[in-house]
Amino acid sequence: MIDLRSDTVTRPSEAMRAAMARAEVGDDVYGEDPTVRQLEERVAATLGHEAALFTPTGSMANVLAVALVVAPGQEVLCEARAHIARAELGAHGAVSGLTMRTWSHPRGQVDLPAIEDLFAPDLGPFFVRTAAISVENTHNFAGGAVLPLADLKVLRAFADAQGAAIHLDGARIWNAHVATGVAFEEYGAVADVVGVCLSKGLGAPVGSLLVGPADLVTEARVRRKRLGGGMRQVGVLAAAGLHALDHHIERLADDHAHARLLADACGVDPATVDTNIVAFDRPDAVAFVAAAREAGVLVGAVGARTVRLVTHLDISRADTDAAAKVLAAI
Amino acid sequence: MIDLRSDTVTRPSEAMRAAMARAEVGDDVYGEDPTVRQLEERVAATLGHEAALFTPTGSMANVLAVALVVAPGQEVLCEARAHIARAELGAHGAVSGLTMRTWSHPRGQVDLPAIEDLFAPDLGPFFVRTAAISVENTHNFAGGAVLPLADLKVLRAFADAQGAAIHLDGARIWNAHVATGVAFEEYGAVADVVGVCLSKGLGAPVGSLLVGPADLVTEARVRRKRLGGGMRQVGVLAAAGLHALDHHIERLADDHAHARLLADACGVDPATVDTNIVAFDRPDAVAFVAAAREAGVLVGAVGARTVRLVTHLDISRADTDAAAKVLAAI
Amino acid sequence: MIDLRSDTVTRPSEAMRAAMARAEVGDDVYGEDPTVRQLEERVAATLGHEAALFTPTGSMANVLAVALVVAPGQEVLCEARAHIARAELGAHGAVSGLTMRTWSHPRGQVDLPAIEDLFAPDLGPFFVRTAAISVENTHNFAGGAVLPLADLKVLRAFADAQGAAIHLDGARIWNAHVATGVAFEEYGAVADVVGVCLSKGLGAPVGSLLVGPADLVTEARVRRKRLGGGMRQVGVLAAAGLHALDHHIERLADDHAHARLLADACGVDPATVDTNIVAFDRPDAVAFVAAAREAGVLVGAVGARTVRLVTHLDISRADTDAAAKVLAAI
Amino acid sequence: MIDLRSDTVTRPSEAMRAAMARAEVGDDVYGEDPTVRQLEERVAATLGHEAALFTPTGSMANVLAVALVVAPGQEVLCEARAHIARAELGAHGAVSGLTMRTWSHPRGQVDLPAIEDLFAPDLGPFFVRTAAISVENTHNFAGGAVLPLADLKVLRAFADAQGAAIHLDGARIWNAHVATGVAFEEYGAVADVVGVCLSKGLGAPVGSLLVGPADLVTEARVRRKRLGGGMRQVGVLAAAGLHALDHHIERLADDHAHARLLADACGVDPATVDTNIVAFDRPDAVAFVAAAREAGVLVGAVGARTVRLVTHLDISRADTDAAAKVLAAI
Repeated sequence: MIDLRSDTVTRPSEAMRAAMARAEVGDDVYGEDPTVRQLEERVAATLGHEAALFTPTGSMANVLAVALVVAPGQEVLCEARAHIARAELGAHGAVSGLTMRTWSHPRGQVDLPAIEDLFAPDLGPFFVRTAAISVENTHNFAGGAVLPLADLKVLRAFADAQGAAIHLDGARIWNAHVATGVAFEEYGAVADVVGVCLSKGLGAPVGSLLVGPADLVTEARVRRKRLGGGMRQVGVLAAAGLHALDHHIERLADDHAHARLLADACGVDPATVDTNIVAFDRPDAVAFVAAAREAGVLVGAVGARTVRLVTHLDISRADTDAAAKVLAAI
Repeated sequence: MIDLRSDTVTRPSEAMRAAMARAEVGDDVYGEDPTVRQLEERVAATLGHEAALFTPTGSMANVLAVALVVAPGQEVLCEARAHIARAELGAHGAVSGLTMRTWSHPRGQVDLPAIEDLFAPDLGPFFVRTAAISVENTHNFAGGAVLPLADLKVLRAFADAQGAAIHLDGARIWNAHVATGVAFEEYGAVADVVGVCLSKGLGAPVGSLLVGPADLVTEARVRRKRLGGGMRQVGVLAAAGLHALDHHIERLADDHAHARLLADACGVDPATVDTNIVAFDRPDAVAFVAAAREAGVLVGAVGARTVRLVTHLDISRADTDAAAKVLAAI
Repeated sequence: MIDLRSDTVTRPSEAMRAAMARAEVGDDVYGEDPTVRQLEERVAATLGHEAALFTPTGSMANVLAVALVVAPGQEVLCEARAHIARAELGAHGAVSGLTMRTWSHPRGQVDLPAIEDLFAPDLGPFFVRTAAISVENTHNFAGGAVLPLADLKVLRAFADAQGAAIHLDGARIWNAHVATGVAFEEYGAVADVVGVCLSKGLGAPVGSLLVGPADLVTEARVRRKRLGGGMRQVGVLAAAGLHALDHHIERLADDHAHARLLADACGVDPATVDTNIVAFDRPDAVAFVAAAREAGVLVGAVGARTVRLVTHLDISRADTDAAAKVLAAI
Repeated sequence: MIDLRSDTVTRPSEAMRAAMARAEVGDDVYGEDPTVRQLEERVAATLGHEAALFTPTGSMANVLAVALVVAPGQEVLCEARAHIARAELGAHGAVSGLTMRTWSHPRGQVDLPAIEDLFAPDLGPFFVRTAAISVENTHNFAGGAVLPLADLKVLRAFADAQGAAIHLDGARIWNAHVATGVAFEEYGAVADVVGVCLSKGLGAPVGSLLVGPADLVTEARVRRKRLGGGMRQVGVLAAAGLHALDHHIERLADDHAHARLLADACGVDPATVDTNIVAFDRPDAVAFVAAAREAGVLVGAVGARTVRLVTHLDISRADTDAAAKVLAAI
């Protein structure tokens, strides 16, 4: 089986397992795991922020991050297919008590006029206030689309003028960096709080981080425990993350090239594929998924009519060619 | 002062007060207030539904109604300026644990292609499911716009095909009926649950109702008590509502005529004013509100750049003419 | 039928209805109802507090009051049969996100050693902190028992030493005052936030108030709207409350006398009946309730084995004698 | 430093790390991690239940487990110092929307008369219903006390008669088994849902499981993702758990012996120490903790006046003797 369902399916490499096996650990609930602290400091520094917090999943990183800047009864604006809106099982409402309003963009982009139109300043105690705007870079369900830095800077200026925060869902910020060459600090500078994930393109088995100001991260540490995310000798996982940061960022370019090959095979213009995800509409999305599986290729449906392919660390050029052949035939 | 801030500001008339003073009452928490039961039965029948529940506010009616058809972790779709999204202080997230996604329409209308694009069927346990679509008729922040019955019927068919519920925020369904002549049952037939309000155009001091299937209304009765909305001898308020239903529906046509006169004075095309609300954008909305107040006319700002005027039971033709003169001068 | 189920069943008197009919009103969501403001100021002053907020129910007053002093993730301590624990449908968890721990006292009293044992100071970010202690005076499910002022003062000193708040559920504080002669200000002085109710012994049809510091009450006004409790021309109800404060406090002594007569008839020592509630255990509580109903007397079961009788404004001495005869015979 | 703060501080042994390094893994969000499945099946079978679910922490296992049997607005009863009440940061209210009421027992035991007194059956839609009773075995903050099986069976019979569920917080059920010889199935049989933890006495770095009926566990899988606990190739952690189950259960007897030695040194009767935890009251608990740290022994304060020592896998007999000397001197 060639598994193109998600870049979450990668298995840790031998080298990564070795790094995990020798990780120095401690009780991270007490803040005493040196490997976790090293990872948190490194990721915070990479994004030019003060502090970071390790979480079991990208979902928890996002749920905590958004709640740090949006109180219950306030709202966050995001694109309609954002991961926080579609794929975190409604936790922002069910757990954090927030509401959302959304704009729609076929490529998941910042649509400033739409955002300006939605934006609700503080109009007094009768209206919901927009406390934050969330952007996702790269945008998963918009086919791994990159959000141009220029757009993010314009959004930052708008948010600053309005006194609103920006949340960056950077689960795949690594892919955006590799695709564009934009420095991580530049992406970090446009956001107040950021979630990043190590277990997608980077290939770590488990682990994400929430990044932001030190005081907010301290508060997030308490809330992480409330959500049941305060793990103990979790340096064994953090070590995988450190290994991934050392070895698996630049190679994402291969995934991107593979994705363009697959796009071509599926009749999608490769020029529209920014990174490692190919998403395209098919009225028969569910049947397409079944046919591909029959032929030995696992792909996903992320909407009633949307097929999604994702390349990753465990998909070689040979796998890509084989999958392309299968998919082209469907 | 001529008060055009909202149709919520009306004071009960002498006749309404007399009806309240002679209302037969009982303990409604025990279901024993005959006037409340009469009102609930009447409103349910008016909308062609099985049952209704009296609530202290339209917000509570909406919060309960939506939560009956959308579980925590599921989502409701609505237009971006819907009252449930903008003016219920985020209760749908903070109290009910739901999430929302929104489409934007300048007139608050059903935009079926946008809704189809947003709609998330049950794709398994990784995605938020759209459990309901909410529409508001008339649409307050879109300037009292009426939603055509034909559009609602098309939406109903779409929702049925998808297994989704429809919530109708009918706080001003009375105005829609008077403006269009469409029977209340017709509006009721397109929705699974409805909220209606007696203390807006109808002129009752307090009171709204949630309308829907008997089993859901029974559940809502428990949840109403959990929210602190289970009042006792509240027939004194229900009597005002019954009086309003008898005497204040058809006269809404006057409010609509007054609104068109005010629109004209403010440079808004009266043909765009469906009912009793005039909303228009001014970059200096806040200054406009202040200037009007200075000149003896109270109007509201419902967004950073949006002025809103609302006519109602306590605004006579003479008040309208006087206010028109003031507003035209600003 | 002689209705002894609760003092919530009273119907407004003619004089009260007349006061309601002539009440001056305004839109209380905008803070413009003069009768509501008068009531709020009067009740705040009565209890020696800065401010008060009118709410549709005692439950909402309590839910808001406790949440003002206990954040989500913190806890409130209360007696195990407190109204906030037993009869508000879990709103303190479901709506406010708090937790509770409880001590048990047969008379619902302050049990300082038990409270000291339960009390959790701030031990750092791994433990739930006790933010408030709640007391109920009189204590409904402990048979209308009065909490002695001396005990409340000792509790106040303990709470002050610990930096914890005190919530007083004073739904029946009127009864405590009449039974003991203790001034309302004295009761008010032991609590940071208080809930009082006008629709129990005082005989108003609807209405309660939350009392406390001005800044907390301002915050509560926003949260009241979020819960759907922001009513409009609700001065019609506030007028009933003002009438009740003028005319129905001192007469509670009659209810207390009637309750002692009923206690005697039921084999309960009248000396144990502090106010207007008689509660006693019967293994056959449900059958007892049914038998009494059969004989024309409505009483309630507030636990699997607990019968409760409540006297009130609509129970005369003759009703009392008739009910006593019936109950003695069961 | 000899670390007696908690049995959570253990570091994975070389053998455990080796097991982790060679673990077969897959994407557990898709249910495809064979090591996780093996662990889940094994733990479910050990406790005689249908199914189990791996979670990042014992807190998440408990939060999910209790919420499976107690709906928002319902309540769970537990002992006042239960971990779910004291040490899960109020998540049962803040995340799950439940309420709690508590009984107090110096040894954290089942106190049936107190539970009967608290228990609230379904009395209709005005009262909170007791949906579950939670017990903790061994009871952490009661000094690792074992709950006798006979008491649990009596509680089971009571709960069955009332139609209530039982939640067993079995974070240290391993210690109870070793101390008493009672089979795990026997403990499992008294509970509807169970939480167990691998990262306490068993010495795994991270990992807990929720155990219960298959349908509830399926629901818990969705909710785990909502809380951000759906990890990917987490078989690397599950492998540590399997290793711990194979090698670290019977050796808990050593920890128990060590704890009794420490108790003796602290003036606590060793006969009162059931397992690996020694808790004792000192008015100067905080100063005691500081003095011990000064002398090279880390202990904890789990209340204003309570000192707690915990023995574990990384505390040898020699460590115990050294710590005993230090503590005896304070």
